[in-house]
Amino acid sequence: MPDLTKHLQIGAIVFPEIDQADLTGPFEVLSCLPNTTFHVLWKEMVPVRDFRGLILTPSGTFAAAPPLDLLIVPGGRGQEALMDDETVLAFIRTQSAIASYVFSICTGALLCGAAGILRGVRCTTHWSAHHLLRHFGAIPVDQRVAVDGKHISAAGVTAGLDGALRAAALLRNDRTARQIQLSLEYEPDPPFKGGSPHTADPEVLEAARAWYRPINEARLATARRVAQRLGIQINEGG
Amino acid sequence: MPDLTKHLQIGAIVFPEIDQADLTGPFEVLSCLPNTTFHVLWKEMVPVRDFRGLILTPSGTFAAAPPLDLLIVPGGRGQEALMDDETVLAFIRTQSAIASYVFSICTGALLCGAAGILRGVRCTTHWSAHHLLRHFGAIPVDQRVAVDGKHISAAGVTAGLDGALRAAALLRNDRTARQIQLSLEYEPDPPFKGGSPHTADPEVLEAARAWYRPINEARLATARRVAQRLGIQINEGG
Repeated sequence: MPDLTKHLQIGAIVFPEIDQADLTGPFEVLSCLPNTTFHVLWKEMVPVRDFRGLILTPSGTFAAAPPLDLLIVPGGRGQEALMDDETVLAFIRTQSAIASYVFSICTGALLCGAAGILRGVRCTTHWSAHHLLRHFGAIPVDQRVAVDGKHISAAGVTAGLDGALRAAALLRNDRTARQIQLSLEYEPDPPFKGGSPHTADPEVLEAARAWYRPINEARLATARRVAQRLGIQINEGG
Repeated sequence: MPDLTKHLQIGAIVFPEIDQADLTGPFEVLSCLPNTTFHVLWKEMVPVRDFRGLILTPSGTFAAAPPLDLLIVPGGRGQEALMDDETVLAFIRTQSAIASYVFSICTGALLCGAAGILRGVRCTTHWSAHHLLRHFGAIPVDQRVAVDGKHISAAGVTAGLDGALRAAALLRNDRTARQIQLSLEYEPDPPFKGGSPHTADPEVLEAARAWYRPINEARLATARRVAQRLGIQINEGG
């Protein structure tokens, strides 16, 4: 049972061209946890712009961050530029070694993979990037939220809400997570079906796949390079 | 049918002690609309802190804002301090008069009410504030998202995602909204039931009601004062 009297340090990485909802969704849930400090962390104390232009401002730097109980790794376009960034990868490695949980959202899983912390870990990510997970030695699972030991991973963007409620329950308890869910009135009712590739209209899915093609080609090239660096053998046909 | 060649101006009000997800949820959906500019608007170009501490930075001021096609009015604790703020209320009145749609999230509906634009409008808000809507002449409806003419309203916090997808479909078309929903992988799967007062565990609901009691007393006193200003007769027993 978690010790409720322990003050929790939660930290999320922010970066240029992040997908802001990968951070703000989990922030909404986890900043409600009692007896907790939520840090928004980057290399420097300078505002960054998300992929669509929203300005997010760090509350602290990697260098000054306390040991975290929960490390949150969001994704978004800008993840690609960090896949060989040793400052970011070392921060993920160091903090995840001591944290109780590491929680990736969307393509944040690729950053965790590049940091080398996903070997043998059952893990999920955005549907468009799912096939890249095994380049990092992870075991891709087709789930919206996956929990494997200390690793919590959420699929694309909005799955961060579901994952964050799971994290809240793990860090505290179900009762606390349920109270947060009620206060956020999280009883979703999407106006359409088709929020995943399994349920989407084929035409809509094909248009989305075409849209992701350029970034996915870049991500695949990067994943191959990282696999080589990590010494992971991939059977690309397999 | 909406004119897809028309560039859309979308603007969301940001303010101190906003509930950040009321803004960032809809931002995530609506900033994906093609041929659109998304403005984050406040009185001044200064960063503000959300209720839980997240720093949000305006992209423009009320004074410099273009005529908006969609005005977004988020809620959160800080809404209460703006209920008699003529700068904010006048901005809501002026923009909503010309906008195609006005979209309130959570207690943003109370701000729209204070601006006097909800008379006779079927409307929803966070469950804890639902009983206050009639003080503004609105017709409260027990729905997660309500659409009445140009007025779109979402219930508490996370309902902003469902409302934003409805807004995307209204501003453009269903196909575009479906593509956005797939790219955000919005096929929610909350880990618990009980995200609304209708489904919550009675104990969890009672704890939440107790938590909201102080702010609700303040909001009721404000709603009564605003009702008087607007000349709206309320039968408090009714």
